[in-house]
Amino acid sequence: MEYAALSVEGGVEQPPTMNPKRGSARSVRRQTPTELVELLTKGDPVALGKAITLIESSSYRDRPAAKEVIEKCLPLSGNSIRVGITGVPGVGKSTFIEAFGFYIADQLNKKLAVLAIDPTSLISGGSILGDKSRMPKLSAHANAFVRPSPTGGSLGGVAAKTREAMILCEAAGYELMLIETVGVGQSELAVHSMVDCFLLLMLSGAGDEMQGIKRGIMEMADILAITKVDGENINASKVAAQRYRNALHLFPPTASKWSPSVLLTSSMSAFGIDEVWSEIIKFVEHEKAGHFFEKRRGNQSKQWLKQTIETRILEDFYRRPNLLHRLAFLEERVAKGEITVRSASDALFEETNS
Amino acid sequence: MEYAALSVEGGVEQPPTMNPKRGSARSVRRQTPTELVELLTKGDPVALGKAITLIESSSYRDRPAAKEVIEKCLPLSGNSIRVGITGVPGVGKSTFIEAFGFYIADQLNKKLAVLAIDPTSLISGGSILGDKSRMPKLSAHANAFVRPSPTGGSLGGVAAKTREAMILCEAAGYELMLIETVGVGQSELAVHSMVDCFLLLMLSGAGDEMQGIKRGIMEMADILAITKVDGENINASKVAAQRYRNALHLFPPTASKWSPSVLLTSSMSAFGIDEVWSEIIKFVEHEKAGHFFEKRRGNQSKQWLKQTIETRILEDFYRRPNLLHRLAFLEERVAKGEITVRSASDALFEETNS
Repeated sequence: MEYAALSVEGGVEQPPTMNPKRGSARSVRRQTPTELVELLTKGDPVALGKAITLIESSSYRDRPAAKEVIEKCLPLSGNSIRVGITGVPGVGKSTFIEAFGFYIADQLNKKLAVLAIDPTSLISGGSILGDKSRMPKLSAHANAFVRPSPTGGSLGGVAAKTREAMILCEAAGYELMLIETVGVGQSELAVHSMVDCFLLLMLSGAGDEMQGIKRGIMEMADILAITKVDGENINASKVAAQRYRNALHLFPPTASKWSPSVLLTSSMSAFGIDEVWSEIIKFVEHEKAGHFFEKRRGNQSKQWLKQTIETRILEDFYRRPNLLHRLAFLEERVAKGEITVRSASDALFEETNS
Repeated sequence: MEYAALSVEGGVEQPPTMNPKRGSARSVRRQTPTELVELLTKGDPVALGKAITLIESSSYRDRPAAKEVIEKCLPLSGNSIRVGITGVPGVGKSTFIEAFGFYIADQLNKKLAVLAIDPTSLISGGSILGDKSRMPKLSAHANAFVRPSPTGGSLGGVAAKTREAMILCEAAGYELMLIETVGVGQSELAVHSMVDCFLLLMLSGAGDEMQGIKRGIMEMADILAITKVDGENINASKVAAQRYRNALHLFPPTASKWSPSVLLTSSMSAFGIDEVWSEIIKFVEHEKAGHFFEKRRGNQSKQWLKQTIETRILEDFYRRPNLLHRLAFLEERVAKGEITVRSASDALFEETNS
């Protein structure tokens, strides 16, 4: 029996909040991919954490094992609702996810995983989103699995790792995926391309509510929720919600003819938190009725494959010796109008192919 | 003197509305790139038309001459205002450009070129946008140069040709570029990435004004103009304009802090046409004051170079034997959840590299 060979920390008796990295350090030997998958599908969060660490590894040595783990999990994946959550820094994303996630885990007794794509972690090196200390109550709940954003590599690489982590979480029986991202950079597009439902958190306040939200993000949202609807903020929030509704009305409809609603929430009082969940369910049912749900997922998979392939091709190209240096030089000359794009492109290919 | 060697149809006496293709057929001999550039910089529209036909040519034989023409024109280019114009079919784009262009050419005595990017022509094979018969009065004006959308190839290829045509038109002394596109597909993004100012034409009408406009396009617009503001439509247009202004107010500001205005126009009565021009000038001055104008152009050039290079790399890849067939097969398997993206990507690279 494969179980017998496992180290102590791989057992299901471990507390779910345990740090997988610390666990890994105490490991007597590494589990095989088969062992890891067997454990994680039995609901062992430590094995799940280890498996995600394995697929996040940038070491070539880990690739075959990582590939095997994902392949084994793939047939067990897909049975969750995948929700993307974004909003500008300050909108109260952590407290919203803490309150919303706790409602799902505790009141509804559903298992949920919180993953993150944080492009700022590419710069700072440290991860901000998905940090367990930001969601202490949720992280401690047995039904919740909270995982920080992968770091390092390009946004595309980070997004690919989060997509794969999602497959593992689904195989581990988590029914709801919350994919968190910050309202800056290109990460919303990455998250949008991997979720069933995109939730935009907004601040109330008069006049300039949209300040800071990237252009185009509002049109990507399937559901909008105004946060911090407490005390003196309640009236302003109602006014803001009505203005958003009017604005959304001017947007062209989605393919499935879904009209995004604007909800009011307070993470402090838990006001409106249950309504966000019913709205997600309502949206998913609406999408499934018109077969847009499966279509969206199918298209996302195809797009992901194409992106993976094209990223690989371009990465190979940009790794050619001296290429980035030459490109920067040619870019400057083109921007100054000294040479044509045709000439610059020809020059680059002639130089680097020879 | 180089002039003496030229065929009759290369002379400046030719009517500007003459079809360059017919002219080319009657040509005694082909002009050299030097001759073509000399003629077009003297304001010869036939030479300009021929030069654009040359750069649009997909024949490998024409490439060196095409490259030489663009290189010679590049130092003379850049001195125009580049305006992109989009709107859904039925918004009255042709009649707007006819009225607006005629005002520029006739009232202001400025030279303008009308170019087009029409992705539908990729499908139909025939060009719709930029067809002279759609703008008879403007096409016949000595100050106007109207050129249909290039056809064939990818959208990227078509866009690159239009960009190069723009360089030639600028070298020929045209002061205003109108780059027309249809409000479907990805062509707005292509046009947006090559113009100084993006003008969105909108229909008035109650309730569902935005129907048909692609999501995200409204946020790209620097200026909005409601068309067909005539007779019974006038009041509805005023209401619609106010609704758009309210909606635009909710959008995040551009980097330069420009607030797009919503103008009312009638191509029939020429109402508001002059105002569109003053608004373009106002916008350009605003952008220049903050150095956003040059920055935008510099970034556009760099982006164009990068796109050209990456398109070339990917085209080379997709031209590998049997690749598209294999990719389609793998895409289906991935979409069905039969294999992972990692495996599919690995399989494709292993097969096609061997």
